[in-house]
Formats: sequence, C-alpha cells, structure tokens
Amino acid sequence: MENFTSYNPTKVVFGKGVVSKLGKEAVKYGDKALILIGKGSVKKNGILQAVENQLDTMGISHTLYEGIKSNPIYQDCDKAVAQAQEFGAEMIVAVGGGSVLDSAKAIAVGFYANHSVWDFYAAQAPRPASALPIISVLTLAATGSEMNCFTVIQNDELRTKGSYGNPLLYPKVSFLDPEYTYSVSPAYTAYGVVDLISHCLEAYFDTSNSPLSDYMVSDIIKLAIEYGRKAVAEPNNYDARANVMWLATMALNGSLDAGKRGGDWGVHGLEHSLSALYDVPHGAGLAIVYPAWLKFHKPQIAAKLDFLAQRVFGLDKNAEDFIQGLEAFFAEIGAPTRLSQVKVSQYQHAEIVTNFINTRANGQFFKLNEGVYQAILNLMA
Amino acid sequence: MENFTSYNPTKVVFGKGVVSKLGKEAVKYGDKALILIGKGSVKKNGILQAVENQLDTMGISHTLYEGIKSNPIYQDCDKAVAQAQEFGAEMIVAVGGGSVLDSAKAIAVGFYANHSVWDFYAAQAPRPASALPIISVLTLAATGSEMNCFTVIQNDELRTKGSYGNPLLYPKVSFLDPEYTYSVSPAYTAYGVVDLISHCLEAYFDTSNSPLSDYMVSDIIKLAIEYGRKAVAEPNNYDARANVMWLATMALNGSLDAGKRGGDWGVHGLEHSLSALYDVPHGAGLAIVYPAWLKFHKPQIAAKLDFLAQRVFGLDKNAEDFIQGLEAFFAEIGAPTRLSQVKVSQYQHAEIVTNFINTRANGQFFKLNEGVYQAILNLMA
Repeated sequence: MENFTSYNPTKVVFGKGVVSKLGKEAVKYGDKALILIGKGSVKKNGILQAVENQLDTMGISHTLYEGIKSNPIYQDCDKAVAQAQEFGAEMIVAVGGGSVLDSAKAIAVGFYANHSVWDFYAAQAPRPASALPIISVLTLAATGSEMNCFTVIQNDELRTKGSYGNPLLYPKVSFLDPEYTYSVSPAYTAYGVVDLISHCLEAYFDTSNSPLSDYMVSDIIKLAIEYGRKAVAEPNNYDARANVMWLATMALNGSLDAGKRGGDWGVHGLEHSLSALYDVPHGAGLAIVYPAWLKFHKPQIAAKLDFLAQRVFGLDKNAEDFIQGLEAFFAEIGAPTRLSQVKVSQYQHAEIVTNFINTRANGQFFKLNEGVYQAILNLMA
Repeated sequence: MENFTSYNPTKVVFGKGVVSKLGKEAVKYGDKALILIGKGSVKKNGILQAVENQLDTMGISHTLYEGIKSNPIYQDCDKAVAQAQEFGAEMIVAVGGGSVLDSAKAIAVGFYANHSVWDFYAAQAPRPASALPIISVLTLAATGSEMNCFTVIQNDELRTKGSYGNPLLYPKVSFLDPEYTYSVSPAYTAYGVVDLISHCLEAYFDTSNSPLSDYMVSDIIKLAIEYGRKAVAEPNNYDARANVMWLATMALNGSLDAGKRGGDWGVHGLEHSLSALYDVPHGAGLAIVYPAWLKFHKPQIAAKLDFLAQRVFGLDKNAEDFIQGLEAFFAEIGAPTRLSQVKVSQYQHAEIVTNFINTRANGQFFKLNEGVYQAILNLMA
C-alpha cells in the first residue's frame, strides 16, 4: 500500500424524497442562491420547482442560469459568474448531472477571480483562496462530481477539455434521489454506467498494490453490470436506479484511491478528444476508447485483468474474457463501441491523432505516444 | 437500499512517516495542546517524542495526561478535562489506540461542559454546542475511532459501558502509520482483527438490502483474515500491518452504512458486559460472543451467512462453514472463544445474565431477552 490522504467532507443525503431537506441545509450558507441547470428538462419534470420551493420556504432568494451543455463550455461558466456576482449570490445550487456540477465548480472559484474560469483549467490562474459553497441535486448518475472536488470543462476554440481540482470544490451537501433519475433516457443511463465503470478501471490501473481498493473496483463493476442492465431495461426500477446512483458516487469519491497513487487516467485523456472534436457524450466516448485501450495493453496487464475477470464474470474466466465481456455489456446496454457508430469516419482519424498530440493525452502509468495513439485508434475503428 | 446520509469530514493521513506532517496540521487549531496517552508504551518506543517534536517545531505548547486504561473509565476523562481547562488547551492530540481516542472524544465535549463526561454517555447531558478539535496518532488498529464520531467509556461503579456519538467528535486529522503498530503484541493484534471483523458483522446484520455494502463486508472480512493472520505471525510486516490498519478504519467509518439502517450492534452490547465485569479486552470478548450469537441466530440468518461463507471461504461453503471458519480463525490467531479461556467460571454466569438484564443489552434487529441471554451464554461457556 502506498502512502495516501483520505479526505472528503461532502455530506451526501441519499434516497426517496431527500430534497425536502434542501432548504434547511441551504440556509446555513446564506440567503441568495444562483441556481444552475442544463437544457431545461428539470423544468418539465418538476425537479426545479421542488428545489425553488425549498429555497422559497427558507427565504432564500434565487436567480436561474439555464443552458449548461452536456459537454459544458467555459463561456457559459463565465456568463454565470457575472450573473452570480451581479445578484450577490452566496451559494450555488446545481440541479443536473455532471456537466452542471462541473460548471458549478468553475463558477464557484470564478466568482472570486478577475479572469475567465478557463484559466483555472489551463493552469494559468493563481491558487484561489475561496469559492462559493455548492449544493447539488443530482439528476444523472455518472460522473461522481457530486462527491469529489474535480471538474472538467470544454474549450471549443482550443478543441480541448481541461480538468481542475481543488478541495474548496467539494460540494457542501449533495442530494441524491434515485427517483430523480427515472426520466434519464436508456442511452444516457448506459453512458453513465460506462462512465462509472471507467472510473473504477482508471483507479485500478495503477502500479501500486491496494487489496481492498482492488476488491472494491471489482465489486462496483460487477454490481454496475447487474443494476445498470436493469436500470436501462426498467427506467422506473427504484432498486436499479438507487444502486447505479450510489455506485457512480463511490467510483469517484476517493474510496478507490486508498493505498494507490491516483490511478492512470489515460483513457479519459483520449476520450476528451472525441467529446471536444465531435460532441460525443463522455460515457459514449469511453465505451469506444476503453475496450481498445485494454486490448492494446493486455500483455502488460494480463494478471490484473485475470483478477477482474474472475471477480466480475466467474472463476473460470481470464483477461480476454474480461475485455470481451465488458465490450459486450457496453453494446448490450446500447453504448457505441466503435467510432463508426458515432459517425466518425476513417477520414477523420488523422484529425483525432492530431488532437491527441496537441492535448498531450497521456496516462500516469501507461505512457501514450504517437505510435500508441495510432494503434489504439485502429482498435476503435 | 434504505435512505441514508453519508458524511465524514475526518482527514486521514496514512503511511510511513506521516507524523512528520502533524505539526503543520495541528497549528491550524491553536497553540496549546493536551496530549493524551495510555499506559506509557508510546514513551518507550519514541512515538510520543516524535509527536512532541512536531508540536515544539510549530511552537505549540503542550501538557501530558497519561494513564488512560484499555477499558477507559470516565474518571480519567474528568481529570483530563480539568487539566485541559487549567492549561487552556485548544486541541487534544490523542496518541494511542481506541481507548485513548474514545477518551479524547469524551474530554473534547467535556471541556465545554459543567458536569462529568459520564452524563453524555448516560444520555443525561444537554446537546453540546462545541468540542475541542481532536488530532489522533493511532498506535493500534481495531476500533475505527480514528475516523468516526463515536466513543465508548466505562463506568465501574455501575459496571457498565456507555456509548455516545456526535458529529462534533470526528477527529480533524488522523495520522495512521502502520509502523507505529509494529510493537503491538500478537494478542492485541488479534483482538484488533476480531474487533474490525465484528464491526463488519454488526453492519451486515441489518434487515435492509444494500449490495455494495454487503460485498464490502465480505471483502473486509476476507482480507482481515488474510492480513490479520500475517500481522500476528510477522509483527514487522509492513504490508500486513498497513492492510489491517486500513481495514479497521474502513470497517467503522460509515462506508458500510450506505443503504442500511445502522446495523444491529447486539453483540457489542453483550460484550460490553464482559469488559465491564471482568476487564476482558473488548476484542477478546467479541471473539467469545460473536460465534455464540451466530450459532444462536443461524436459522434466521442462514441465507446471509451462506453469502458470507461463499465470498470469504469459497463457493462451496455454507452458513455453518462460515461460523466454524470464523471461530477457528479467532482461535488460530490466539483470541479466546470461550468464557473459560478468560477465567470466567460457570459460577459467574448468573452475574453475567444479571448484567445483560441491567444494561438492557439488545440489538436493533435481533432482539435479545432473558431467554436469549441464557442461550447465548450457554454457547459461550
């Protein structure tokens, strides 16, 4: 086991009807809130109204910023910062999925800065001294952003995504009501499941040895397959939605980092190019990149894959079975596993490799270079 | 999955040499510390000196309270409160195992109270508004107190133990250096392993269904058997000590409560009588009570035991194999599994039942009464 620090101050309130407790938590942070939402689905299904009622009951005034994209862009965050400043917001209430939450984190630090939020992601900003408190109401199980201090934002001009992490950005309270995910489409439910499985794999492909973390990685993947399959087939199955929601949180709240050196994250780097270039949903892109990455690295990681195969698919399985089983599961739940399925033709491959090069896509342990880019790309085609 | 809240703000700094970071963390909380220790072993092995050096370097003055017993008594806490008040302590630095940490928590709330700390445990105190911050340096892997807000203290006059929990009592920072546990005797190492396995079982014997928690319970028990055996046999094996230390923390830091209703805790209630009556170490008492409790309840919990048997001991195993395997493991590592081994004779059985009755020992789900007390006692004899 490697030396590590475990710290996560986010309070998660999980279960049916938990948003009824939001007002009491929010009032601890002030009486003016910026509410942040995506494209407006939370207006139709009543979730926004429930949140606004909670704030109103406690006398918390609020202003709404609407229109965060599913691959969120920094310009929206800059606009929301201006709106929050003008309003005098004392907190951000993020109602949505990972893109809304990641944007809320950008806005939270941007609020006290005199520059674009992008500078944080470009590592060009001074270390912030404070951030607005964030309260989240999750409507999509996928990114784990509800219980960590990381955020990923897109820059369309540079055709890249940037990531940023700061302990100031742990949400103060996150409300996770599985019923709030009933209206998520089968496709986005599947992408969320792919995302959470990918987070487990990124943590797992670390060269350090941490037995409990390795066991938990296999547990979360095994349960994500079982309950992910069920959530896609039965959108209103509470048990399936609840399990997927908690698994997604646990996959990236630090629990898997104990005794490790932070995981690899090379696949995420590669996927960000697909999202930045073609607006592919993050989870869909991961379903294409991960099987290819595993196939390419199989000789180096065979023993680790054997372990996962046995724990996830059965004692008689091996590395190849794990890769095939995972890819088959992604396909079964409706995620793409080849670039052609997201309408990226082979004529665009050069553009992808160029983007990998420009963004210096790389992993912490499994080093990528131009030759590897091309080989993995061939396996994605 | 049941509704639940997950919240744990303790920062854990884990690994070799981590106490070198203590000064920088401590200085955030003031410049006067009460250091709390047990019977003095940390004086001999240099751990206390390392902690004092850290405080000295940062200009933090300190006073020492020495002599916390392994079954800690409230009178020591009251004395330490007086010493802390007189000194004007702004924090408590607890250097020891669960008994020192649990006492630190009593002192932390007692510091602001005008009554004995026992009143908190007897549920006779008003809700405290504040507590001294606690920094812990763990020297024994067992209770999980380093990353939770619970404390158990003994009252010898009433021949009982009381427990108390308050979110104010999460340690601010806990330093976990596995090398600091090298000098723990094989017997106390074994008791710690029994304790952490018991915490998993208490969480598990809940009537609610929480798949990830159930998987993690089996993982922690399986690894505790593997690395516990190794830690007892090879006291200076870093890997064994590190795994046992982290497993003990994870067994009672809230991770297993997700989707559950808080666990049963009936066995802990029964064990507290053995510790209070005969000064049996807590882990040793648990090694006697848990097998008996499992045997008595087997018909009701057979399916849950089958699951554990398969996950911990092998796919062909069943409930009876789990009970036998667990009891055999306790015996193998040197923990007692019968009352006669801790020199409690059958003439004292009536006294034990009377104590069960007086302390109203009970579980949240598996209800105990006088008939059950006697039946479980017979299985412990």
